[in-house]
Formats: sequence, C-alpha cells, structure tokens
Amino acid sequence: MSQPAGPGAHDPSVGALDALALVAASELANFARLADDAAHAPELRTRIALSRMAAGELASLEAVETHAHALGAGAEDFDDSIWTFRELLSEFDARLVPRDWWERLVKTYIGYGIVLDLQREIVNGLTGQTREVAAVPLADNGHGDFVVATLEPVISAEPQVAARLALWGRRVVGEGLGITARLLAVHPGLATLAAGPGWTVEQVTALTGRLTGEHARRMKRLNLTA
Amino acid sequence: MSQPAGPGAHDPSVGALDALALVAASELANFARLADDAAHAPELRTRIALSRMAAGELASLEAVETHAHALGAGAEDFDDSIWTFRELLSEFDARLVPRDWWERLVKTYIGYGIVLDLQREIVNGLTGQTREVAAVPLADNGHGDFVVATLEPVISAEPQVAARLALWGRRVVGEGLGITARLLAVHPGLATLAAGPGWTVEQVTALTGRLTGEHARRMKRLNLTA
Repeated sequence: MSQPAGPGAHDPSVGALDALALVAASELANFARLADDAAHAPELRTRIALSRMAAGELASLEAVETHAHALGAGAEDFDDSIWTFRELLSEFDARLVPRDWWERLVKTYIGYGIVLDLQREIVNGLTGQTREVAAVPLADNGHGDFVVATLEPVISAEPQVAARLALWGRRVVGEGLGITARLLAVHPGLATLAAGPGWTVEQVTALTGRLTGEHARRMKRLNLTA
Repeated sequence: MSQPAGPGAHDPSVGALDALALVAASELANFARLADDAAHAPELRTRIALSRMAAGELASLEAVETHAHALGAGAEDFDDSIWTFRELLSEFDARLVPRDWWERLVKTYIGYGIVLDLQREIVNGLTGQTREVAAVPLADNGHGDFVVATLEPVISAEPQVAARLALWGRRVVGEGLGITARLLAVHPGLATLAAGPGWTVEQVTALTGRLTGEHARRMKRLNLTA
C-alpha cells in the first residue's frame, strides 16, 4: 500500500483496502443478482421493485472507490482487487441454480444475507472514515422484508414447498459459509477485522456462530427449519 | 380509456397510453439487457459502466407511469399493458443468443437502437406533455459510443471477426424489424402515431425506410457491411 493522499485520510487498519474492495465487489454482485431476479419476476410490480433495489446497490460505489484511492490505493490495483473478489462471489451463483422463483428468492435472501453479515463483521473491525464509508452499502435495502412477505403465504399454505425450501436454504447457507471460509483464508487481513486480532480458533468459532445465528433468524422469519 | 384526471392532463392522441406503456416496458427491458451485458463484461470498468447505464434506464419510469395514470389509465390496466409489451420485447432476446462478448455488444447496440428508433417515431406522433414525458427515456445514454469505441479496434484488426459480426448484425436487424412489424400490427394506434394517420402502405414503407436508414448508420459507425 502506498502513502495516504491527504490529512485525515490515513487509515492504519490491516485489511482496510481489502475490505473496501470486497464491499465494492459485493455491490456489483448484488446489482447483478437482483437484476437477474427482476428479469425472472412473475409480475410487473415485483419486477420493478427488484430492478429498483438492484439500481440502489450502485449508489455508494463511487464513494467507496474514492475513499480507497484517498487511502493510497492505486486505481489499477484496487480494480484488480475488486475483480478478484467478484470471481469469488460469482462462484456462489455458479454453484446454486434455483429451480423456480421461490428457490431464487430464498437463494438471494439467504446468500445475500450471509455475505452481507460477513461484511458487517469485517466493517466492525474498521475505524474512522473507512468504517463509515464501507458501512453505507451494507444498510438494509428492504429485500428481506420483500422476500418474507412474498414467501410467507406459500410456505404457510404448502408444507411440501416449505420442506423443499428448507432443504434448499440449508444448501444455500452451506455454500455461503464455504465462500466465507475461503474469503477469510485467502485474506488474513479481513479475518483479523472480522474475527479479532490474532484470529484464534475461538474467535473464528465465535464469528461463525454469529453468522449462523443471523442465518437461523432469517430462516425463522421465513418459517423454515434451519 | 376513462376520463382524464385533471385540467391540462387530457391527451387526445390515439395510442397515447399504448405509447407510454411501450416506453415503460422498454425501460425495464433495457435495464435487464444492460445489466445482463454488465454481468458478462470481461473487465471491471466495462462492468461498472454498463451497470450504471442499466440503472439509468429506470430514472424516468415513475414519471411515465404517473403521467399515464393522470391521463386516466387504471393502474392495473396500465400494468397489464406494460407486461404485454414486455413479452413482445423479450422475444427478441430469446431468439438471439450471442456466442461471445462482441456479438453481445452488437446485439444490444443494433437491437436496442432499432426499438429505440421505433419509439422515437411513435413519440413524434404524440403531442403536448405526453410527448415530453415519453421522450425523456429515449435520449441517448452513451451506449452506442461505448460499443463503437470497444469494437472499433477489433473490427479494424480482424477481418474474419468483422465478417462474422456483419452477418450477426443482419440477423439482429431482421429480428428487430420483425418485432417492430408485430408491434405495429397488434397496436394500430401505435402504427398511426409512427407512420401517420391512415397508416397507408406508403407511410409504412417510409417508416421502415427511416428505421433501416438509422440501422445502416449504426452499422457504418461500426465499419460493418449493412
């Protein structure tokens, strides 16, 4: 990492630039995922709502990039870093092909949720302006409420669908935790931010516990067995 | 169509509501197409640029809907109308599966272009506020310049690629004109707006001539044989 660009821009956190690149890559991945969900929506209002959510994902991308450059990241290096995270995040989509609209909604809710929670854990380890800038894209965009409202009638009326979606949710969270583990293994700086300095077995276990706890809360909101 | 909602909102043009629904459907279709192109982009800056162009497609959707409701369109009727146009526009994508990134760019440029030109012809037949509102989403969003700048080096350096893309461009325009013909056949109000009152053979021929002329201009910009 080269020197910071100006006063106040210095951020000594280990992994700060990796964290910003991950947040940027995730914004782009969520844009693509929500846009693709919108294209598969069975009716117009859903399509419009999801298209708008997708577009909203890009709102703070420029601020994240600008801040990374202010911290001293070279434009090309930072682009490369975003691209690398993009590849890792796209594996998630390649491995999980939903069979219908409901599985698609569950996949995005559960998968999006776990990667978002991981980023929140990472951003909690940051300080100052970097923490502020990186936290903006992680705010709730209403997607969870939308999915719960859409699936609730189906899940309560059709036990077979509920059983199938519960099974699917377990597959999705498995892949999500796999991506999470790989991400932290490849980027120890992010592991330190998310799990704590030292990155001990106890700390990683506690982090995984927090992530699976949030996952269980989402499954419960859907009335699905976690 | 029921009575207009307020003073100044009345628009007597035949097909005004169909025109607004088509414009809204096209915004959603272009959002999806550009977002899908972005997801296939070979590098980050292109991916970001196309994602932003996609998001920009939604900017005037609400104004179009609000105006249609002010003209007296029932919310559900107008939604149904948008959905019907969406189905027609999506045939274009189902029939043309690009084999690589270059074919994808040509497809969007040529296909997007011809449907946009058709809408411009339709909007030219409108008057007053409806014309103003419907014209906003049809402004140039820079996609053509982007495609020309990206493909120019490839096309000038590789004659075989140029020949293949010229052939592909002819397939794309064929499908585009097919969609156009079907659209006007199913919606005589739109045909009247685009081709002129009476919708005579001469008028339709002149319209087709204008559309193919604009297509030829795009192919020329790409240095491809039309």
